[in-house]
Amino acid sequence: MSKPEDLPPMAYRFLGRSGLQVSAISLGGWLTYGGHIDREGTFKCMKAAYDCGVNFFDCAEEYSKGDSEVVMGEAIRKFGWKRNDLVVSTKLYWGGAFGDNPVNNKGLSRKHVLEGMDASLKRLGLDYVDLVYAHRPDRQTPIEETVRAFNHLINTGKALYWGTSEWNADEIAQAWRYADKLGMIGPLMEQPAYNMLNRDKVEREYAHLYRETGLGLTIFSPLNKGILTGKYKNGIPENSRFSHTDVPFIGSYMKQNAGDKWDAVVEQVNRLEPVAEKLGIKLATLALAWVLRNQNVSSAITGASSVEQVYENIRALQAVDKLTPEIMDEIDQILGNKPPKIVARF
Amino acid sequence: MSKPEDLPPMAYRFLGRSGLQVSAISLGGWLTYGGHIDREGTFKCMKAAYDCGVNFFDCAEEYSKGDSEVVMGEAIRKFGWKRNDLVVSTKLYWGGAFGDNPVNNKGLSRKHVLEGMDASLKRLGLDYVDLVYAHRPDRQTPIEETVRAFNHLINTGKALYWGTSEWNADEIAQAWRYADKLGMIGPLMEQPAYNMLNRDKVEREYAHLYRETGLGLTIFSPLNKGILTGKYKNGIPENSRFSHTDVPFIGSYMKQNAGDKWDAVVEQVNRLEPVAEKLGIKLATLALAWVLRNQNVSSAITGASSVEQVYENIRALQAVDKLTPEIMDEIDQILGNKPPKIVARF
Amino acid sequence: MSKPEDLPPMAYRFLGRSGLQVSAISLGGWLTYGGHIDREGTFKCMKAAYDCGVNFFDCAEEYSKGDSEVVMGEAIRKFGWKRNDLVVSTKLYWGGAFGDNPVNNKGLSRKHVLEGMDASLKRLGLDYVDLVYAHRPDRQTPIEETVRAFNHLINTGKALYWGTSEWNADEIAQAWRYADKLGMIGPLMEQPAYNMLNRDKVEREYAHLYRETGLGLTIFSPLNKGILTGKYKNGIPENSRFSHTDVPFIGSYMKQNAGDKWDAVVEQVNRLEPVAEKLGIKLATLALAWVLRNQNVSSAITGASSVEQVYENIRALQAVDKLTPEIMDEIDQILGNKPPKIVARF
Amino acid sequence: MSKPEDLPPMAYRFLGRSGLQVSAISLGGWLTYGGHIDREGTFKCMKAAYDCGVNFFDCAEEYSKGDSEVVMGEAIRKFGWKRNDLVVSTKLYWGGAFGDNPVNNKGLSRKHVLEGMDASLKRLGLDYVDLVYAHRPDRQTPIEETVRAFNHLINTGKALYWGTSEWNADEIAQAWRYADKLGMIGPLMEQPAYNMLNRDKVEREYAHLYRETGLGLTIFSPLNKGILTGKYKNGIPENSRFSHTDVPFIGSYMKQNAGDKWDAVVEQVNRLEPVAEKLGIKLATLALAWVLRNQNVSSAITGASSVEQVYENIRALQAVDKLTPEIMDEIDQILGNKPPKIVARF
Repeated sequence: MSKPEDLPPMAYRFLGRSGLQVSAISLGGWLTYGGHIDREGTFKCMKAAYDCGVNFFDCAEEYSKGDSEVVMGEAIRKFGWKRNDLVVSTKLYWGGAFGDNPVNNKGLSRKHVLEGMDASLKRLGLDYVDLVYAHRPDRQTPIEETVRAFNHLINTGKALYWGTSEWNADEIAQAWRYADKLGMIGPLMEQPAYNMLNRDKVEREYAHLYRETGLGLTIFSPLNKGILTGKYKNGIPENSRFSHTDVPFIGSYMKQNAGDKWDAVVEQVNRLEPVAEKLGIKLATLALAWVLRNQNVSSAITGASSVEQVYENIRALQAVDKLTPEIMDEIDQILGNKPPKIVARF
Repeated sequence: MSKPEDLPPMAYRFLGRSGLQVSAISLGGWLTYGGHIDREGTFKCMKAAYDCGVNFFDCAEEYSKGDSEVVMGEAIRKFGWKRNDLVVSTKLYWGGAFGDNPVNNKGLSRKHVLEGMDASLKRLGLDYVDLVYAHRPDRQTPIEETVRAFNHLINTGKALYWGTSEWNADEIAQAWRYADKLGMIGPLMEQPAYNMLNRDKVEREYAHLYRETGLGLTIFSPLNKGILTGKYKNGIPENSRFSHTDVPFIGSYMKQNAGDKWDAVVEQVNRLEPVAEKLGIKLATLALAWVLRNQNVSSAITGASSVEQVYENIRALQAVDKLTPEIMDEIDQILGNKPPKIVARF
Repeated sequence: MSKPEDLPPMAYRFLGRSGLQVSAISLGGWLTYGGHIDREGTFKCMKAAYDCGVNFFDCAEEYSKGDSEVVMGEAIRKFGWKRNDLVVSTKLYWGGAFGDNPVNNKGLSRKHVLEGMDASLKRLGLDYVDLVYAHRPDRQTPIEETVRAFNHLINTGKALYWGTSEWNADEIAQAWRYADKLGMIGPLMEQPAYNMLNRDKVEREYAHLYRETGLGLTIFSPLNKGILTGKYKNGIPENSRFSHTDVPFIGSYMKQNAGDKWDAVVEQVNRLEPVAEKLGIKLATLALAWVLRNQNVSSAITGASSVEQVYENIRALQAVDKLTPEIMDEIDQILGNKPPKIVARF
Repeated sequence: MSKPEDLPPMAYRFLGRSGLQVSAISLGGWLTYGGHIDREGTFKCMKAAYDCGVNFFDCAEEYSKGDSEVVMGEAIRKFGWKRNDLVVSTKLYWGGAFGDNPVNNKGLSRKHVLEGMDASLKRLGLDYVDLVYAHRPDRQTPIEETVRAFNHLINTGKALYWGTSEWNADEIAQAWRYADKLGMIGPLMEQPAYNMLNRDKVEREYAHLYRETGLGLTIFSPLNKGILTGKYKNGIPENSRFSHTDVPFIGSYMKQNAGDKWDAVVEQVNRLEPVAEKLGIKLATLALAWVLRNQNVSSAITGASSVEQVYENIRALQAVDKLTPEIMDEIDQILGNKPPKIVARF
């Protein structure tokens, strides 16, 4: 499938208070590359994304037990992309798959951060990643140890910037407290789930971090695991992700997203359909554009199982401007989850 | 009314990671002293509390527009209590009543913190308070300015410790970041609302601050503005606080606590009654004891319109041990608001 | 003269990155109070300004050799204004008048800063000023000594905030370098001349300081010593300031503003007249509103010889919104002195 | 052409407040080596300069899209010069030529500084440069990030000293502020344009940086792109740089230097001719000697298209002493651009 002519040019955004620019739409390997998408499929998606101007490719040591890193590294070499044109990330925390004894192969101890980084670079076939994340908070390890360990990665040239994923706001602030105390580099970016149905963390909890720490966001799950495509409006189809039993964590997702609220969520999503129709776009496009309208979002990490899906995601860029204040208000009315406005300076 | 013989001895708790001890039950002037309780009534309540071992008396520049400080200061002199036996607090933020131009008479600027402190001390007739609080977060003033201003109060001997009231967890962490950077003293204690019906902030949001910053809590509203006494089970009585139209903020409280959820809350409270009965205590005693069972709570600030109420509050101390793990589970089942357990060390 | 009914309400602005608010229009004592305006005239002007919501009154040890501070302090006591409603400033540098040997009675040594502050407070009859400025850079005194001296004033409660006046951008940055190194407070505000004819320092030289140091501006000379009132269009009138030979510095002003360029400046001012007419305001009002349209300006310090002039100045507040982007462009075309746009983030 | 016998010995100057010495005359690759001068021509010029005692060779990643570094690196190897005898520099900022996506291949982000340095060293064929410059200010990247990135280069041994080029004075001071805060190394040297016709930045704007930060200068454009050779006195000759249409930036230079002022500049240059004649030197020699008479200049970077030009440049060294205070005054009278004297100590 050749690149459609109607695709908008890529937009680039600074990653928080840094000089690094990431494509507003980026491509992540979670659940897909190295997982249920095969090598050739991965290569095609990555090539299509790169050709659309995507420069940020997101990985984690845990995605498909390392295979995501392996196949994404292969793609970079296969296509001969220049290292300086790419922003490659990985995340450290759940390295359990790589040892026989899980005890020290997870979490954010200096041991696992250093060892995990070396193992990730080896799988990727790279000398360094641009971004490395602490994939979850580790409440068993002192935050100071973790801050020092990630600075060690930066000082040894194995990573250029570090950040967090799904940390609490006060834990990010504590990390900055130790970084400041030690003259070290604090976490630049957070990688939270963010979408129309889950906005509290990004819009309320983190609200003061943007100005206090210069936090940038590389958000994941902009379509809330597909729910915001509207494909569940008539129940869960057989070949969807929610019917796969082998997809990791599926149980917790089901529980988290469904439960008593499943019907209410589906109904809410159905009420968003007419808004998308009115704008002449698909619901998924609306959902992705909605995420990008938040200027604290540096990049929305998208998944794509096919080249067509890559192109669909890129199309969201031209829908951002359609989200006028009036449309945003209409969406807020439907969602009913807008956090109260915070009055603050700076 | 003379002190009943069955009253338990006072318990004292360290205020967070400090060497200061406060009575587990303390007496606050909000809405009462300087307000709808007259001078003589205030003197009687304070004397009764003091005689029961209460050492911590809580005020704010804003309580009754300063009159709360005035009358509590009078009481201290009237009874000739030794300064070193007392822990006196005030809070700065809403000093608007004390100027003709509200512009700089509120918030947490250096100007208002310094001027507000001097005015409070004058009203109290004291050289210093033991505790001074930033009564709310001020998102218009840089946190560093506020940290410096409260340290100025400590350095000039006008306050011994400083803390916050109703700040977000990350804002408290930021205050510590600046305090550490500058070699200054961070906020020692927080004063949040905390009771059976409102436990998220204390039990979930602040969860990591206790070990990270040594945060102590002096909680207010343990009975959730009287709702947890059970007195609203048959509707709002005419002479209750909720029927006063002149009590400040009453409108917002009603709205906040009642609304659609009013009936549900009343029903929940009604289901707690049998638990209290089973333990042979009043519902209000149960509610207060429940708060004290949380070891992160250094002191529960109680209000009292009469000497009898003072004694009732003290009785909660002997009920704490009745709250066995089984009873706590039973209460959690009724409340349905227990935050998920957080696994953490330190 | 009673307060006209058509006066707009006062606007207040935060002073740079601080929690202090100053009236957008403020009143300064330079050349007037303690100088060619007598006591009663000063009282009338200050009362009129206060009644219009002016909360910031600007002084300097050097204005009228200290008499400006004396008379402004008298006014504050005479009218019984509350200290917390006022923002009072002074400036230290040229204290030469107060000693027999000028050697140590000027500049920014610790000796003069401390001694000068005490003398100013005595003249003002106040315990502290809100703002104290280093009235000029002192290139004979190490900046570190000056930073320490002004912090001493703050630590001893004699001033709440400190700033500079007519310093170079790099000197302000150096002051912050020493302040940061020492954990001290850097200069919060600058007091430069700023008006349509002199905009380079504020709009170009300081451009990066606003975000790097949170610099606020309390600008003086918004009418460029009266030139922007248009009163010189037919030559220098006999009773104007420029014909006074006893006004200090008159020689340098004449030379600075006139010289070869006098005719060109007058012609330029004449071309601004039609713009003011089109907006239905006086030229002086236009000039003052133009200054206030710059959001980096926290307050425009105005002089006033009469109550009527005070009211005229206040009227500029309602003209700010008339300065649309189109009008601003038109003015820029006439002035021909707009600095190139600076592209910067944060 | 063999080295003329009349050439003066090289002078060496300390580079600002450091222990490094650079030749007062140095050789730069801008517009020439890798550009319109071929490999052999480059080798000859560099050899001649080296033989005259020039030890400092100046490059940038951007000069001729990297070819300047390539050919200068070749020369070093070809002649077998000892690394320790050389001071080699490069500059990072405009690396756009080296990527397919310009987004992160320019500016002063940690990514480009680290990747750009590695690419430069590879082109030069060196393990390290002595000096690395931030070729322009990058107002999109936090200065702290840039300070940290250049210190990373120093800590990893890829550069010995770092500096800036064409930064504002306050930006240099800010860089020192972050460097001091972090215990890091601040920018040692600046590389501004400096010549008789452009002296404001070096003589006024940077005036306080020399003592405050120990700033050294390696100035470029001492002849103001050839204008100060006097070769344009009869119009722009066909084979001069200003008639080349393929020289980069030529348009902007013409506009910048000529425009309405072209005739005035040419006339001014013509009036300098008699001064040079009186001293028995060429105008270009006078211009270069004039630059070197400023003791804040550590090195004047010269371009040379031929060996003869190299020798001509060296001759300026013996003309420095001819610039007596009287001659300097005479030149200042002609130029009319001497900044006011700044009284300062240290």
